[in-house]
Amino acid sequence: MSSFTPVASLKGRSVASATQFSRADIDALIQLSLKMKAHIEAGKTIDALHGRVMTPLFFEDSSRTLSSFCAAMLRLGGGVVNFKVESSSVNKGESLQDTVRTLDAYSDVLVLRHPKEEALEQAIGAATHPIMNAGNGAGEHPSQALLDTLTIHAELGAVDGIAIALIGDLKKGRTVHSLLKLLTHNYALRKVYLIAPAGLEMPAEVLEQVEADVQARGIAIEQAPALTADIVSDCDVLYATRLQKERFVATAAGDADALAAFEHAKSGLLIDKARLAHAKAKMIVMHPLPRVDELSTDIDDDPRAAYFRQMRYGLFMRMAILFSVLA
Amino acid sequence: MSSFTPVASLKGRSVASATQFSRADIDALIQLSLKMKAHIEAGKTIDALHGRVMTPLFFEDSSRTLSSFCAAMLRLGGGVVNFKVESSSVNKGESLQDTVRTLDAYSDVLVLRHPKEEALEQAIGAATHPIMNAGNGAGEHPSQALLDTLTIHAELGAVDGIAIALIGDLKKGRTVHSLLKLLTHNYALRKVYLIAPAGLEMPAEVLEQVEADVQARGIAIEQAPALTADIVSDCDVLYATRLQKERFVATAAGDADALAAFEHAKSGLLIDKARLAHAKAKMIVMHPLPRVDELSTDIDDDPRAAYFRQMRYGLFMRMAILFSVLA
Amino acid sequence: MSSFTPVASLKGRSVASATQFSRADIDALIQLSLKMKAHIEAGKTIDALHGRVMTPLFFEDSSRTLSSFCAAMLRLGGGVVNFKVESSSVNKGESLQDTVRTLDAYSDVLVLRHPKEEALEQAIGAATHPIMNAGNGAGEHPSQALLDTLTIHAELGAVDGIAIALIGDLKKGRTVHSLLKLLTHNYALRKVYLIAPAGLEMPAEVLEQVEADVQARGIAIEQAPALTADIVSDCDVLYATRLQKERFVATAAGDADALAAFEHAKSGLLIDKARLAHAKAKMIVMHPLPRVDELSTDIDDDPRAAYFRQMRYGLFMRMAILFSVLA
Repeated sequence: MSSFTPVASLKGRSVASATQFSRADIDALIQLSLKMKAHIEAGKTIDALHGRVMTPLFFEDSSRTLSSFCAAMLRLGGGVVNFKVESSSVNKGESLQDTVRTLDAYSDVLVLRHPKEEALEQAIGAATHPIMNAGNGAGEHPSQALLDTLTIHAELGAVDGIAIALIGDLKKGRTVHSLLKLLTHNYALRKVYLIAPAGLEMPAEVLEQVEADVQARGIAIEQAPALTADIVSDCDVLYATRLQKERFVATAAGDADALAAFEHAKSGLLIDKARLAHAKAKMIVMHPLPRVDELSTDIDDDPRAAYFRQMRYGLFMRMAILFSVLA
Repeated sequence: MSSFTPVASLKGRSVASATQFSRADIDALIQLSLKMKAHIEAGKTIDALHGRVMTPLFFEDSSRTLSSFCAAMLRLGGGVVNFKVESSSVNKGESLQDTVRTLDAYSDVLVLRHPKEEALEQAIGAATHPIMNAGNGAGEHPSQALLDTLTIHAELGAVDGIAIALIGDLKKGRTVHSLLKLLTHNYALRKVYLIAPAGLEMPAEVLEQVEADVQARGIAIEQAPALTADIVSDCDVLYATRLQKERFVATAAGDADALAAFEHAKSGLLIDKARLAHAKAKMIVMHPLPRVDELSTDIDDDPRAAYFRQMRYGLFMRMAILFSVLA
Repeated sequence: MSSFTPVASLKGRSVASATQFSRADIDALIQLSLKMKAHIEAGKTIDALHGRVMTPLFFEDSSRTLSSFCAAMLRLGGGVVNFKVESSSVNKGESLQDTVRTLDAYSDVLVLRHPKEEALEQAIGAATHPIMNAGNGAGEHPSQALLDTLTIHAELGAVDGIAIALIGDLKKGRTVHSLLKLLTHNYALRKVYLIAPAGLEMPAEVLEQVEADVQARGIAIEQAPALTADIVSDCDVLYATRLQKERFVATAAGDADALAAFEHAKSGLLIDKARLAHAKAKMIVMHPLPRVDELSTDIDDDPRAAYFRQMRYGLFMRMAILFSVLA
C-alpha cells in the first residue's frame, strides 16, 4: 500500500512559498503526484495518513482550494476538522496566534488562508506542526504554482523550452506572481508573454525579483496589452486569470469610462474558439478558475482546454505535498 | 468484510429519479439495506469505500437529507468533503456546470440538492462521476422514495396488497409525488387514498403519469379532503407530510380566512391518539419529518409510529445506494 | 492496535455531569488519556472506532470544544457528521427532541452544546445512543472539568494536596463550577482560593453543593477580591477564566463606573510576568481559553504557563471518553 516515497526534504516542514523548493523537490513532487494519480485512477486507495488530522483555517473564502486540500487529505486516509472561523473565538477578540496554537494542539497539519500577508509568518511562529500556505494576501499560493507546473509537465511532457503567456490582471494576481517566480527560477523557458490591460501590468517589484533568473537562463520576456494571433500561435501555454470589472473603476475617470475600458480589455484578452484557431495543435489553455468573462465556454470541449484537468492535477499535487509533509 | 453484493445495475450510474429502477433493482436494494442494517446493529463495521470521497452540493438547506447521506458515506468507510455553497465561487458568478466540474475533479460521487428542477440534468451533463439527486425543485427525491418503500417492506413484510393514504399538501409535496410513482409502477397496491385540503390536491399531471400503471394493476384510487375513521381503519400505511400555514394564505380571501382554512384542514388531517384508535393493530404511521402540526407527539410511543425508524431505514438505504454506485 | 482498555463504567452511557464519575473512573480516564497521548506522540495511530459516527449538535458557538471533540473522534478512526443547527429544521419549528431523534437515528454518539440547562435532560430522554454534554447553559461542562483534572495530574504528578486559585468571573463561569465540584468531591485539596471581583463571586448555591465534601476533607476555602503576592506564592495552580467587560455594566451605576470597576478588577486579577515572579518554581497557570485581558502573553514562554498544553490534554481526555463510551 505505501509503495509511495515521500519527498524527504518536505518532512515536517511548512509550505510557505513557491520559491522554497529546489528543482529536485519539484521534480520529485511531480513524479509522486503522477504516481498517486495512476494509483487512484486504477481504483486503488491509499491509507498512508490514517488517524492523522488536518485542520483548515480559512480567514477568507476559497471553496475551491479548501475542497481540494480536504479531498487530498481524505484520499490519503486522513481526517479533516471542519473549523469555522466565523463562529470561532476570533469573534471574542482572540489573536491569530492563540487560534493557531489551539488548533495546532489538536492537529497534525494546518492549512492557512488569510487576507494579510504577515499572517503566515505569525502562524508558523505559533505552531508546532507544519502549516500549508493556501494564500496569504498579496503574498504566495505555493500549492497553486506547483499544481500549475505539474499540469504543464503532465500535459506537454516538459516545462523547459516552452513559451507561456500569463494573461489578465497581472497586478493583483497572486497566482501568476507565484507561478512566474517558480517557473523562471527552475526552468529554461523559451519565452514569457505578460499580457495585461493598461494599469494592471505585472508589478515592477515582481519583475525585479525574477530578473536574475531571467538573465541567467536567457528567457525572453515580452509585455503586451492584448493577445494577438502571433502570440497565440507561438505559445505552448495560454494561462488566463480572472478579469474583474471592479478593478477598472479605480483606473478610470468615470463609470462609463471604466466599463468601456473593461470591455476593451476583455475583447483583447478573451480566449475563445476564434482566438484558439491561431494556436498550435499541441498546446494547452489553463485557468485557475473560477472564470467569469475572460474564458469562453465555447472551447470547453477542445482537447487543448486543460483547465478542468488542471483542477484534478491539483488534487494529486496536494496529496503529494501532504503525504511528504506528514508521512 | 465485503460480503455485501452491490446492485450491479447501479454501478457508476447517477441516481436521478425514482422511476429509473426496475422492480428487481428495488428488491435488491431493500435486501442489501436490511443486510447492512443487521451487520451494523450487530456491532460490526463496513470498510468498503475507504479512501473514496463524496461531496454534497446543497443549493438549499436540507440538514436531514444531508446528514443521512454523510453518515451513510462515513459508515461505509468513505470521506465527505464539506463544501459550502454559500461561501463558494457561485457568489463570484460561477455557473452550476463549472462548480460541478470542480468538485467532480476531486470526488468519486456528488450529492446534489437544488431548488431548480433542470439543475440535475445540467449537473449530470457536466460531471464525469455519478450524481445522487437529493431533491431537484418540483422534480424528484429518489432516495426518499426508496427509503419509504424499504420502511413499508421491513415493517409490514410486503408492499404488494397494501392500502396507503398519502396525506397533507399533495400539491407541492415532491416526496409524495416520487413515492406514488415508484409504488404504482412497481407494486400491486390494493388502494391509494389521496387526502388533501381543497386547493392542495395531488396535481392532475402526476395522476396522469401514474394512470397507465394504476389501470394495469387495478389499483383503486380515492381522493378525500379529510382522514375519516373508515379510511384510517382500512389503511396499512398512513403517510403524513408537513402542512404549512403559508400555503393557505395564497388560496384564501384574507388572513383570517386563511387561518380558519388551515385550522379546518389540520383538524381533518391530524394524526393523533384519537384518530389512531380506529387503525388496525398491524399498520404503520410514516412521515418524512420535520413535522409541525399535522402529527401529534401523543402517538410517539405507539409501536405503530414508524417515523423515527423510517429515518434509520433511510441511513441503510443510502448506504446500499452509495455502496452499489461506488463499490 | 487496541491495546487500550476502555473505562468499563462509561460503556454506552451519556456523559452529563462532572459528578457522575467515581474517583476510580477519573483515575482510569486519566491513565487512559496519558497512554493514548504517549501512543499518538510516538507516531502511532488508533483505529478503534472505524466506521462509527459522531454528530455534534451545537446550539451555541464553541469552536474550541467542537474542534477538540471532532479531532478526538477522527484520531480514534471514527467519522464526524457536520450538522449545522443554523440551517436545520430547527428553523422550521422542529422540537429539540425531534432533532435529537433524527441525528440519533444516524449516529453512534451525539455531542450536545445548548444554551438552556434543561436541554440536556430532554436530549438524553429522546436519544437511544449516548450524549456527551459539551456545555448546557448554566449547568455543566464535564469534559472540561475532566481535562482540567488531567492537566493538573499530568503536570504536577498529583491532585491531592494542592492549593488552587480559581480566578475571574466565578459567578457565571460554568467551567469553574464543574471543576470545583469535581475536585472537592474526589481529591483532598489543601486549599482553594476563590478570587473574584465584587458582584462576580462564586454563587452561594455552588458553595452549598460542595460544603459537605469540603468539611469532610478539611479543605480550606478562602475568598478574596484580588490575587495578592501571598496567594500567588502559596498556589500550585492558578486557574484563570475570562473576564468580560460586559459583566461590569450590569453591576455599576454608569458606563464610566463600569469601565473603572472593570479596569480595577482586571489589575487585581491579571496574571503576568510581574505577578508570576511571586510563584513557586513548580506550579502551573491554567486557562480554558480564549483569553482576552486577564492573562498576559508575556508569560507564554514561561514553562509554568500550561494553558496551551491544557488544550492538548483535552484532546486526549476526549479520546479516552469517546473510546470508553463507544468501544
